[in-house]
Amino acid sequence: MAAWLTSLQTDTPQEGFELALKLARKGVGYTQPDAEVRDRLRQEYAEDADSLTMASQVVAIHFQTVAAANNYWK
Amino acid sequence: MAAWLTSLQTDTPQEGFELALKLARKGVGYTQPDAEVRDRLRQEYAEDADSLTMASQVVAIHFQTVAAANNYWK
Amino acid sequence: MAAWLTSLQTDTPQEGFELALKLARKGVGYTQPDAEVRDRLRQEYAEDADSLTMASQVVAIHFQTVAAANNYWK
Amino acid sequence: MAAWLTSLQTDTPQEGFELALKLARKGVGYTQPDAEVRDRLRQEYAEDADSLTMASQVVAIHFQTVAAANNYWK
Amino acid sequence: MAAWLTSLQTDTPQEGFELALKLARKGVGYTQPDAEVRDRLRQEYAEDADSLTMASQVVAIHFQTVAAANNYWK
Amino acid sequence: MAAWLTSLQTDTPQEGFELALKLARKGVGYTQPDAEVRDRLRQEYAEDADSLTMASQVVAIHFQTVAAANNYWK
Repeated sequence: MAAWLTSLQTDTPQEGFELALKLARKGVGYTQPDAEVRDRLRQEYAEDADSLTMASQVVAIHFQTVAAANNYWK
Repeated sequence: MAAWLTSLQTDTPQEGFELALKLARKGVGYTQPDAEVRDRLRQEYAEDADSLTMASQVVAIHFQTVAAANNYWK
Repeated sequence: MAAWLTSLQTDTPQEGFELALKLARKGVGYTQPDAEVRDRLRQEYAEDADSLTMASQVVAIHFQTVAAANNYWK
Repeated sequence: MAAWLTSLQTDTPQEGFELALKLARKGVGYTQPDAEVRDRLRQEYAEDADSLTMASQVVAIHFQTVAAANNYWK
Repeated sequence: MAAWLTSLQTDTPQEGFELALKLARKGVGYTQPDAEVRDRLRQEYAEDADSLTMASQVVAIHFQTVAAANNYWK
Repeated sequence: MAAWLTSLQTDTPQEGFELALKLARKGVGYTQPDAEVRDRLRQEYAEDADSLTMASQVVAIHFQTVAAANNYWK
């Protein structure tokens, strides 16, 4: 696997949030490596309220980790 | 993406709670960028008890992060 | 929005638990501001075991935050 | 509401686990105060694998709080 | 209830993971004390992908607690 | 059980993420030890958006633990 995660440090909270998004998606990518399948499934979750909330929750957990890693960008 | 998150610091716990709400919604917004779709889906979750509880849970996780970031506004 | 959350400090763990309940409900209230709709939905979740467990989980996450904010009332 | 939670301190991890169970149940009790309804619903979740797992998860979150409150009984 | 949890300390991360599994199962056991019912329900969740993922999540939360209790076995 | 988890320390965040994946899968493996059953179930979750999101969430919780164990690889 190519190097995609070398640090949790980001300059801003927004970059930290976007890293959290990347981590959440990688969690799916490692489980379902086939990009075609993932793209096909997008229609399933991108237009379903609960699916979108579940996705937002995974981002929230990763953001909690990234924020702590950056000492909350104080 | 425009700068929407420059700090986790807020003056009060209530502002912290409202930032947590914003983070939860941004988690959905990044996943489904189409505002029209999100508005259409609102009818789905805004009148469903479990959907509202799930949304409240994402806010709770983000609020935990924001509260720690603000040293609980002590 | 009126000031409803000025501090996370409470005198006792029980008050902390009740603040966590308030935070969980506010997470729903901000998402569905219409009290009539929320009252109508109460029948849906108040007599459903899994819905009640989900609600209890949101309280648990907020209680974790409030307990840390109060240094566990030691 | 009578005083039911005056401290998070327990002598042993097992007592801490049992306090976490109490907190999880209180989260349901505050949301559905009618004991008859809660007893009726017990048949629903007590014989459903996923419902039992969800209940165990709420206990896990509260146990994480109680364990931190007791400095992990070191 | 017999003494089943006297310490969160374990010698290795693997023992810590196995303690987390025990805690997750005890959360079910305290809620459904009837072993026969629990065994019957095993068929329900042991061959259902989402049920297994939910069970793994409860272990993950308990493992987070046990790992912190052991200062991550550093 | 053979020794599969001797340390939470990893050299990089990416290795930490991959350890989190391993922990999430072990949580399933301990609950359903039959590899054939797990392989059969893969079709169920690997092509279901919500199932993949749930799996990613377990990874997120374990990654939070592993990241703290490694002091966020600072």
